[in-house]
Amino acid sequence: MARVNENYLKLPGSYLFSEISKRVAAYKAKNPGAKVISLGIGDVTRPLPKSCITAMQKAVEEMGNAETFRGYGPEQGYDFLREKIAEFNYKSRGIDIDAEEIFVSDGSKSDCGNIQEIFDQNAKVALPDPVYPVYLDTNVMAGRTGKLMENGYFEGVTYLPSTAENNFSPALPKTKVDMIYLCSPNNPTGTVLPRKELEKWVNYAKKYGAVILFDAAYAAYIRSLNVPTSIYEIEGAKEVAIEFRSFSKTAGFTGTRCGYTVIPKNLTGENATGEKIPLRQLWNRRQTTKFNGTAYIVQRGAAAVYTDEGQREVKETIDYYMENAIIIREGLKNAGLNCYGGIDAPYIWVKTPVPSWDFFDKLLTEAEVVGTPGAGFGMSGENYFRLTAFGDREKTIEAVNRIVAKI
Amino acid sequence: MARVNENYLKLPGSYLFSEISKRVAAYKAKNPGAKVISLGIGDVTRPLPKSCITAMQKAVEEMGNAETFRGYGPEQGYDFLREKIAEFNYKSRGIDIDAEEIFVSDGSKSDCGNIQEIFDQNAKVALPDPVYPVYLDTNVMAGRTGKLMENGYFEGVTYLPSTAENNFSPALPKTKVDMIYLCSPNNPTGTVLPRKELEKWVNYAKKYGAVILFDAAYAAYIRSLNVPTSIYEIEGAKEVAIEFRSFSKTAGFTGTRCGYTVIPKNLTGENATGEKIPLRQLWNRRQTTKFNGTAYIVQRGAAAVYTDEGQREVKETIDYYMENAIIIREGLKNAGLNCYGGIDAPYIWVKTPVPSWDFFDKLLTEAEVVGTPGAGFGMSGENYFRLTAFGDREKTIEAVNRIVAKI
Repeated sequence: MARVNENYLKLPGSYLFSEISKRVAAYKAKNPGAKVISLGIGDVTRPLPKSCITAMQKAVEEMGNAETFRGYGPEQGYDFLREKIAEFNYKSRGIDIDAEEIFVSDGSKSDCGNIQEIFDQNAKVALPDPVYPVYLDTNVMAGRTGKLMENGYFEGVTYLPSTAENNFSPALPKTKVDMIYLCSPNNPTGTVLPRKELEKWVNYAKKYGAVILFDAAYAAYIRSLNVPTSIYEIEGAKEVAIEFRSFSKTAGFTGTRCGYTVIPKNLTGENATGEKIPLRQLWNRRQTTKFNGTAYIVQRGAAAVYTDEGQREVKETIDYYMENAIIIREGLKNAGLNCYGGIDAPYIWVKTPVPSWDFFDKLLTEAEVVGTPGAGFGMSGENYFRLTAFGDREKTIEAVNRIVAKI
Repeated sequence: MARVNENYLKLPGSYLFSEISKRVAAYKAKNPGAKVISLGIGDVTRPLPKSCITAMQKAVEEMGNAETFRGYGPEQGYDFLREKIAEFNYKSRGIDIDAEEIFVSDGSKSDCGNIQEIFDQNAKVALPDPVYPVYLDTNVMAGRTGKLMENGYFEGVTYLPSTAENNFSPALPKTKVDMIYLCSPNNPTGTVLPRKELEKWVNYAKKYGAVILFDAAYAAYIRSLNVPTSIYEIEGAKEVAIEFRSFSKTAGFTGTRCGYTVIPKNLTGENATGEKIPLRQLWNRRQTTKFNGTAYIVQRGAAAVYTDEGQREVKETIDYYMENAIIIREGLKNAGLNCYGGIDAPYIWVKTPVPSWDFFDKLLTEAEVVGTPGAGFGMSGENYFRLTAFGDREKTIEAVNRIVAKI
């Protein structure tokens, strides 16, 4: 019988959100009148900007007429979108990134998950702990790690603990690594890497020939002035870093699906004989062979984000979520809890006086509020708890009031 | 410096369509008045069905209202679409496939390209020659082959020559293989595998524990009665086959992006100790980790294909293309050329009296018609030529008239 990819079998089940659902369901069954509020899910709730809606309505119409119908588009994305991204997010901010260095996709999750394919099977991986689980899981699936050890860590992976003790700015690895995932603003901690920290990583990458895989999906939430919204604000980063961005948390595209990856022309890896190979060329090969472009309609919607009206609307939505963040952070501080994040990100990371899951149960049963146990994002997430600012305003206020009153 | 995945470097450049463009451009530069007609590209030209347009307009509207907005959807696709697919394409035809066995995606290219990930690194691959290049290329990229040899074949791959000599029904491999790609109707030959041939493959797979990867992207074009539109029409296929389908060539979704993969619950591979592992479970892990679902708007459009009106419109479009196919096939036969395909598929596969690229040049310079050299799809495609029925009716007639007059 055909043998399967056994690396998949090294992964534990994805129990985090299913375990949460199970506990919530059990509580509701016991307490039929309970009005449980969830601040747990990392999904947006506000509708798409009107400018995106209008642009997509027009695009749908085009698809219904032979004269304006679009078949296969470029796998890398349409120029009308790549050029807007380059202009708006990079050139206008003094960063020299060309449209040709931008690859539009169906979302950052796909790109963050697929990018490891272009690296050698034996490349050494470093990643923050805790962090968005896709970086680790996809490298496990690709066989780039050993097995899951009893202490909860995978063999052969360099974890970068990020806790209150180090101000959520992990130290450089002690051994040489090849691929470094960084996520700023970080999911789940909601904290950011300031300029000095990013410089530290870019210097490390230059020195050791490593590649930084920089996930900036939440960049639009950054308000602090000393925090770069792009890794390319750091000198020399174009020679060592790939950047991932998304329309999901910016314009509410979690169910509409559009993101992009930036691979500068001068960013290279090497082959066995030491010849330099542009990573952009490998990613282009990957995308043209295994992907067929993002829907035209969706790309038109994404492009509308860069109109004046689109920008105004996106700002309004982010302001709404960030006001929720302030409400949660201030409320929890008043309840005597230590809180991190929530200033440049829609996530509030709460230090819990008890283990993550015990705090989950306490919050659920005493305040009827649901959050996400930090342990679900990595071993260093134990004794932390994630609350999200993506909810409805009234419910967010009510949830915080309950926490303050009951905890 | 970080080492790259050197398997990517084994692939030759994708020269086929860029070489075609180059030659066409050169000809036009020399002959400024030339009215070149292309019957070369495998892309549709008719607009989306009105029922899809209406459904997508409604879905876009929903995304603009907080009450009906949709964030992250299920990675496997919405039930409203999976259930329609199961009912319409399988259950109503007497095939017991459940909605849970269907994984909606952004298109068959992604799925055909990604499916190999769930198999062992050392699995032996067999594939038709000629065929859609994605099957081979993705296995090369994954390191499941040796290097490209001077004869144009990759080491370690079992090629299944499909030519007029064997009626485009390849013989079983002489050695045991684990993964067998089949494509019926075939791109590029336009020929199909009749029931007896599919039974042969299902029996082989059962005997040797192989898995059939059945690409049925063109199934909607099948008109002959003895030709199954699904591999699952063959007894026992649910234990040995994965099926890929697409809305691209059915409803014109090449630029709208939606397809699906069927993995029956009882289909298994095995691990090192011989334990049976459901492939559906591995694919589910792959999709939930590296994919975030197809856009809600697009899935609503796809679901509209299964309304009465949608079915009528899809049939009308396919009839239009298939009338083009008849025009091309009959015309070329009248010109004394041997033609295959074009009966159950939108592709006509022409036997060329000279090498593929010489025929390309002859057709371009004498008839001002562009097609695709068969050699571009595999070594056994040499001395063949692909013409497609996806063009405009008038231009198709004009192209055929020119070929008949000039060749």
